[in-house]
Amino acid sequence: MYKKFRYNNKFLGGVFLSTYEYQLTLTKILERAVDVFPDVEIVYRNISRYTYTDLYERVQKLANALEKLGVKEGVKVATLDWNTHRHLELYFAVPCMGAVLHMANPRLSLEEIAYILNHAEDEVLFVNETFLPIVEAISNKLKTVKHYVVITDKEKMPETKLKPVYEYEELIDSASSKYEFPELNENQMATMGYTTGTTGLPKGVYFTHRQNVLHAMGVAITAGCYLKITHYDTILHVVPMYHVHSWGMPYMATMLGMKQVFPGIFDPKIFFELVKNEKVTYTCMVPTILDMILKHPEIDNYKSYLEGLTVIIGGAALPRALCEYARKLGMNVLSGYGLSETCPVLTIAYLKRTMLEWSEEEKIEKWVKTGLPLPLVNLRVVDSQGNDVRRDEKQMGEIVVRAPWLTKEYYKDPEKTKALWAGGWMHTGDIAVVDKDGYVKIVDREKDVVKSGGEWISTLTLEDVILRHPAVSEVAVVGAEHEKWGERPIALIVLKPDYKDKVSEDDFREHLKKFPEKIPKWWIPDRFIFVESIPKTSVGKIDKKVLKPKYKDILKQT
Amino acid sequence: MYKKFRYNNKFLGGVFLSTYEYQLTLTKILERAVDVFPDVEIVYRNISRYTYTDLYERVQKLANALEKLGVKEGVKVATLDWNTHRHLELYFAVPCMGAVLHMANPRLSLEEIAYILNHAEDEVLFVNETFLPIVEAISNKLKTVKHYVVITDKEKMPETKLKPVYEYEELIDSASSKYEFPELNENQMATMGYTTGTTGLPKGVYFTHRQNVLHAMGVAITAGCYLKITHYDTILHVVPMYHVHSWGMPYMATMLGMKQVFPGIFDPKIFFELVKNEKVTYTCMVPTILDMILKHPEIDNYKSYLEGLTVIIGGAALPRALCEYARKLGMNVLSGYGLSETCPVLTIAYLKRTMLEWSEEEKIEKWVKTGLPLPLVNLRVVDSQGNDVRRDEKQMGEIVVRAPWLTKEYYKDPEKTKALWAGGWMHTGDIAVVDKDGYVKIVDREKDVVKSGGEWISTLTLEDVILRHPAVSEVAVVGAEHEKWGERPIALIVLKPDYKDKVSEDDFREHLKKFPEKIPKWWIPDRFIFVESIPKTSVGKIDKKVLKPKYKDILKQT
Repeated sequence: MYKKFRYNNKFLGGVFLSTYEYQLTLTKILERAVDVFPDVEIVYRNISRYTYTDLYERVQKLANALEKLGVKEGVKVATLDWNTHRHLELYFAVPCMGAVLHMANPRLSLEEIAYILNHAEDEVLFVNETFLPIVEAISNKLKTVKHYVVITDKEKMPETKLKPVYEYEELIDSASSKYEFPELNENQMATMGYTTGTTGLPKGVYFTHRQNVLHAMGVAITAGCYLKITHYDTILHVVPMYHVHSWGMPYMATMLGMKQVFPGIFDPKIFFELVKNEKVTYTCMVPTILDMILKHPEIDNYKSYLEGLTVIIGGAALPRALCEYARKLGMNVLSGYGLSETCPVLTIAYLKRTMLEWSEEEKIEKWVKTGLPLPLVNLRVVDSQGNDVRRDEKQMGEIVVRAPWLTKEYYKDPEKTKALWAGGWMHTGDIAVVDKDGYVKIVDREKDVVKSGGEWISTLTLEDVILRHPAVSEVAVVGAEHEKWGERPIALIVLKPDYKDKVSEDDFREHLKKFPEKIPKWWIPDRFIFVESIPKTSVGKIDKKVLKPKYKDILKQT
Repeated sequence: MYKKFRYNNKFLGGVFLSTYEYQLTLTKILERAVDVFPDVEIVYRNISRYTYTDLYERVQKLANALEKLGVKEGVKVATLDWNTHRHLELYFAVPCMGAVLHMANPRLSLEEIAYILNHAEDEVLFVNETFLPIVEAISNKLKTVKHYVVITDKEKMPETKLKPVYEYEELIDSASSKYEFPELNENQMATMGYTTGTTGLPKGVYFTHRQNVLHAMGVAITAGCYLKITHYDTILHVVPMYHVHSWGMPYMATMLGMKQVFPGIFDPKIFFELVKNEKVTYTCMVPTILDMILKHPEIDNYKSYLEGLTVIIGGAALPRALCEYARKLGMNVLSGYGLSETCPVLTIAYLKRTMLEWSEEEKIEKWVKTGLPLPLVNLRVVDSQGNDVRRDEKQMGEIVVRAPWLTKEYYKDPEKTKALWAGGWMHTGDIAVVDKDGYVKIVDREKDVVKSGGEWISTLTLEDVILRHPAVSEVAVVGAEHEKWGERPIALIVLKPDYKDKVSEDDFREHLKKFPEKIPKWWIPDRFIFVESIPKTSVGKIDKKVLKPKYKDILKQT
């Protein structure tokens, strides 16, 4: 069952080498895991359950099947899939044979999906049957895809007009379960994805084998040595696998030989059942998913199973109230941070040894922050001159970073790459402050922060405090041009129906003055404008790129 | 205090690069630790106590002082020191400035120490005052050393005829505490040492920055994710720092920002006091040291502080009785394995998730084995044709290995390098069996195992069982030449005084027959020869290279 490792003395390009020059490749992670933990389980909903040995056998079958479809080193293979065991098989088979796994994001618009598949030049497309309508709608626009493979939970292949098309299990069924994975150079491209920025076309990022392996190691060290997440835990993969390697967790979990549980498309009821039945102890998610879980009508039936569950929150700030509530239920909830460009994890809000004796309240103060850098991550918050900001929780700066797992460039886009890597540091575009203990906290996006008289004003902090006013349903703060100060903040407020015409601009000025420790006087917006609605992006975030031009001259008009 | 990281865009050789090509160097480990954990303590006996911030400042002073002595990239700097905070400073300052740290072993003979210092071409020699007599005795033979630096706990520099000579604190006192560590290529040599093989001259091994960083990461993952050793633990460095990076623990501990305690020369009483006063929770040592600790007359005063202490045992097999006794005291004792050639750690005898429910007895069975490979370690046990042995705990084979942290060669010795790396695998010379769960157990050294009729007989196993006979004080089994079988085992036995002339060869044949599960009939030695004593090597091991030629013809004579 377990394929013997190679006793060869060949290496890159067939050159004979006596000393084996070890390359950090994903193949090494998989093969050692199968060697040491052949019997550990991998579970997909209540549909499939197998061992690491089975995984390795199916990965080899898949590689053989892909080879028959013409996939070879450097060929791009795209996936449009939920969190399934088959997606995990693709996570290994494609890069380990030297091809490139493109985790395509099905949440993009049709036009964007067609764009990224063409831009990446994907030759094979694996598509979960739930996304068939998407692919059928754009298939006539796809210029490079030669083969479609459908992933389905059903017995039979669904009807589709795509061709040539295969069903996943049929494809691998007849393939040999022995595949000799090649010795790859660790700097070979392994995975790619596209960022869903709010401006312009999606930008491609990619990661080599080395970067993925080092990221898995960095995350594993942080998990084990700061969060006490170990091989003995059971992980449920909630972060979509089409989103930056599901934050790298499938590679980390495989490296450690953890029991892994795949929930398919996210569904709170299935989440609860899997946590209960598979004894899940660790997961990652965005704060809105945690909120959905904790507000679910059936939560009372599952509370006891959530006790002791460690949850890393990323994608957006972890609201303090949410953290407090989850912790009261016995869940170990804390924050992490990263970008599509960074593989993704850069920081996690773990505690330091001196903080173990702190009160729960003091600890929560840290857990909801952006966090501390992982081992090998050199993360700085710098002013526009490149000097580190003071650790006073006040002076703002941009997060710039160096780490072994950052994308080398935007794919085929030297111009944007130059801006990303200006001065030899990766610019995250996130504006943050640092506290006296070194914990970073993001306060804005670089393009949203208001630059007033050479100083910065955090729109996120203003929005956060304005939201505490009982009259406010929604709020957006943006910068408007100002003759004297360059820019000044203005607030756009959607009032709750009951409060319409009952509050004034001055009420909000007074409200903000109540929080002098958070809002210096000069931060108070010049205008509070009551609006009917606030425009949102496709993923539900406030669309400031629409708001800013609309209101940019408003302070001049008055 | 905390030096700002560089905001430059220069890189290797001064070439301008937009993307920062991250190199895995020891500088990265140190600087991130100081960034995140500036206040964590580093303790040396009851003599010195400072923080990571102080460490970094002193490392920079040391680098400046070394630069003044002419140390630059590639220059070898040797140390003859115990486990001190100053040795830790050298562990970082020397490699981080691009020079090479040679951890010289003061336990070698005078002749060997002179040989390795000349062979390595060391230019600066740091010497603990306790080793001054050694260095003074050989200084006229040292061809490359230009400067001596004395490490002392006393106020004043001891008398010495060495010159030019400096006292460590004086040397760094006047140096600047700002040093700009260069951007190094990760494949640059960082550390070196010499193996104390039983045959021939010591052989040099060396490790690059990359190898040391990846080793620290691999060990950290294993610590955190399999042994639950974390940043929150306090480590006491017992393994000598002149012995393969003290098993890599100082680099791992610094990477994690652990509190580190340095005991100087090992002394059981100081060990007890440090464990008690500094609340030590983790350490590593050889089995004889553990035995010494547990048999110490004052142990009863310290038992409660040993409870919960995790101890990794290496250097020799962990005797089951020792493991059982330590576990009864509440210590978490288990086995690890590695060589000077392998940085050193290859395996640790951690449990798998399915074994947590096992009985203590079953677990101990695993904990005393050689263990399971670390992440990224590809370890095989192969027969002479290079095929993996069966996982039946019977078939023996040699351990061969590939990992990211194995020495590329024996320094300046291409001939021995060729044998070490024959066929692209590093040959450990250790003979082992593998059980059904994949746990490796070493049963002999390749050069000691008896090859009888094409099959192998483990001399260690025979010695182990013969030792259980009450009459035996010491025993050595070696192979003697045999016309029909090629080799046959013979046993050399030192009887306890009371048993002299009271036991016969046949008594031992009968004794061995009582253990058929361990000793197949055909393993029983052809002769049991009673001797007065058994020759030992300088480190107290049975010297089989003396015994084998002496007895090689004994089966032909009879």
